[in-house]
Amino acid sequence: MNLSDLQTPALILDREAFGHNLKTMAERFPGTTLRPHVKAHKSTDIAAQQAATGHIGFTCATIKEVESLANAGLGSDLLLANEVTDARRLGVCAESTGARITVAVDSEFTVNAAASGGVREVLIDVNIGLPRCGVAPEAAGRLADFARSKGLHVRGVMGYEGHLMMVSNARDQTDKVAKAFALLTQAAEQAGGEIISGGGTGTFMIHHQLKVLTEVQCGSYVLMDTDYAKHGFNLRQALFLLATVISVTNQGSDNGWLVIDCGLKANGMDHGNPSVPGGDVWFCSDEHITVAPHREGPLATAKVGDKVLVVPAHCDPTVAYHEQYWTIAGWPEGEPIASIAVQDRWPVDMRGW
Amino acid sequence: MNLSDLQTPALILDREAFGHNLKTMAERFPGTTLRPHVKAHKSTDIAAQQAATGHIGFTCATIKEVESLANAGLGSDLLLANEVTDARRLGVCAESTGARITVAVDSEFTVNAAASGGVREVLIDVNIGLPRCGVAPEAAGRLADFARSKGLHVRGVMGYEGHLMMVSNARDQTDKVAKAFALLTQAAEQAGGEIISGGGTGTFMIHHQLKVLTEVQCGSYVLMDTDYAKHGFNLRQALFLLATVISVTNQGSDNGWLVIDCGLKANGMDHGNPSVPGGDVWFCSDEHITVAPHREGPLATAKVGDKVLVVPAHCDPTVAYHEQYWTIAGWPEGEPIASIAVQDRWPVDMRGW
Repeated sequence: MNLSDLQTPALILDREAFGHNLKTMAERFPGTTLRPHVKAHKSTDIAAQQAATGHIGFTCATIKEVESLANAGLGSDLLLANEVTDARRLGVCAESTGARITVAVDSEFTVNAAASGGVREVLIDVNIGLPRCGVAPEAAGRLADFARSKGLHVRGVMGYEGHLMMVSNARDQTDKVAKAFALLTQAAEQAGGEIISGGGTGTFMIHHQLKVLTEVQCGSYVLMDTDYAKHGFNLRQALFLLATVISVTNQGSDNGWLVIDCGLKANGMDHGNPSVPGGDVWFCSDEHITVAPHREGPLATAKVGDKVLVVPAHCDPTVAYHEQYWTIAGWPEGEPIASIAVQDRWPVDMRGW
Repeated sequence: MNLSDLQTPALILDREAFGHNLKTMAERFPGTTLRPHVKAHKSTDIAAQQAATGHIGFTCATIKEVESLANAGLGSDLLLANEVTDARRLGVCAESTGARITVAVDSEFTVNAAASGGVREVLIDVNIGLPRCGVAPEAAGRLADFARSKGLHVRGVMGYEGHLMMVSNARDQTDKVAKAFALLTQAAEQAGGEIISGGGTGTFMIHHQLKVLTEVQCGSYVLMDTDYAKHGFNLRQALFLLATVISVTNQGSDNGWLVIDCGLKANGMDHGNPSVPGGDVWFCSDEHITVAPHREGPLATAKVGDKVLVVPAHCDPTVAYHEQYWTIAGWPEGEPIASIAVQDRWPVDMRGW
């Protein structure tokens, strides 16, 4: 089967770039010093590849992600890095699969939910500047004591500096991240335990230097997108969308455009429009992107029926629209897109809740 | 089962508002003068309700939508109002279900695809100002002749004024829509056939006056969203997201916020953030919305574990993230959200491609 045989839009995973990203991060953060966040890719096949490079613990954002990994035999150490108010599905999952499940807590309510739901281990989620979940650093010790009083094992703390992921000045970002994680260190001293978890693809280089975290939670690094590409990391774009040209107007004129069959329902749009190499995206509709082709390049003479690549602006919510990845070995120089062989179908099996 | 029993985020359909919207539109456009666009709701259960009010023909944006309706016994007159470069699945569907399938064409390529794929009827898609699909109005007759030469029955023309949906000044919008549809009338005269199809929820009142269209293609009217609500039509918000409060910080202060478990992967984001009644949305993350509660109102004293409603900013790409609607009879005055009874599960069975 070739790419031309796929119904478009289709999610494509370039195994060569993907392998490069796996290797790069496994060298930088070997073994359990990286706890990959599966929310970015939502695929147990991808998680299995991460585990094969030594990253056997995973970070999850939803109960469904925890269950999927556990059922796929990848449950040796699963962290649900998010608050849940009803943990019964997690307790059932641990019981039925033998998975080790740890859940983030930031209130007495979520501690009680963990204990009564059958979860036995928790991390204290600490607010280090992002106005989202997490207790104030100075309250971490008190909540840890409360959790212990409910029979829970407190493995440590976590914090997420989401507000600092896209700070563009490197020195500025390093200073701010260092200050934020000083708060987490302070909380860790009060809460006890051996884990200090946090970070993401936007800050992994800083964490490599800072050495505050016992484990980083990067997720997007395996796939990448146009937003993370701005950082200039040694990580390659591995995620693409395959689309088909369905309409061509005014070809060759200054006011020409193409329409490809890959729109709002195939792309997470919170980071703006996706990119189409060889053209300028005018706008996205439910099932279309209108693109003005550059005068020279791959789209200049595109015809109806041709295959075109789209690069997502934000990988996580893009993947969540799709049922599967189709994997390819890579993009051989000079080979037409349509004739590239498809290797495997990897389901996006952690979708939903 | 009550709303409190649902895993959140969950898509909720208010049957009272939904019924009002069905009735309102069925009175204004009886029978086949409305060809509801199913891309907004992607549910054969909702389509069946539309058919029950007399709208037995449907508009689709994808092959999957056509197949789903046909397989659900709703295939008496299905228009795929979009170009496809490979129509074989449509031919197989027509053959196996007996559905009547018409596809939009705007090029010799798509005409050939329809003919060779086993589709027998087409509409000529005409560009009336939106830079997307469609032939120039003056080329409609030539393409219709070409389609007939390939053995296809040309049922008429269609055009979509997507660029005029959100023009805020009513007179300005009416003038612009009238001019755009004068082009479609011209194309219809050249192309022949009996159908002139187009329009949407943003312009249905204008089409009711203009009387150019033989059928309007409104879709969002059954669900509505915060964007369409700006029009002030006599249509009610029927689509909601149910979320759970998972974290509360600084309650009662000027710098307080709530976190609810309904983020980027539960909301189409191309129209910006969804709304949370009783609060101001600060930002959305993959699985969270951070909301500042108003000092008075339903969120002022919200606790962890409480249920909260979210109103989508754009219904179509929001629905496409979900597996099902949970229907409720309505929102009884004064009744807590959590204790409202769930009626039915309606799958979003037209998702994907």
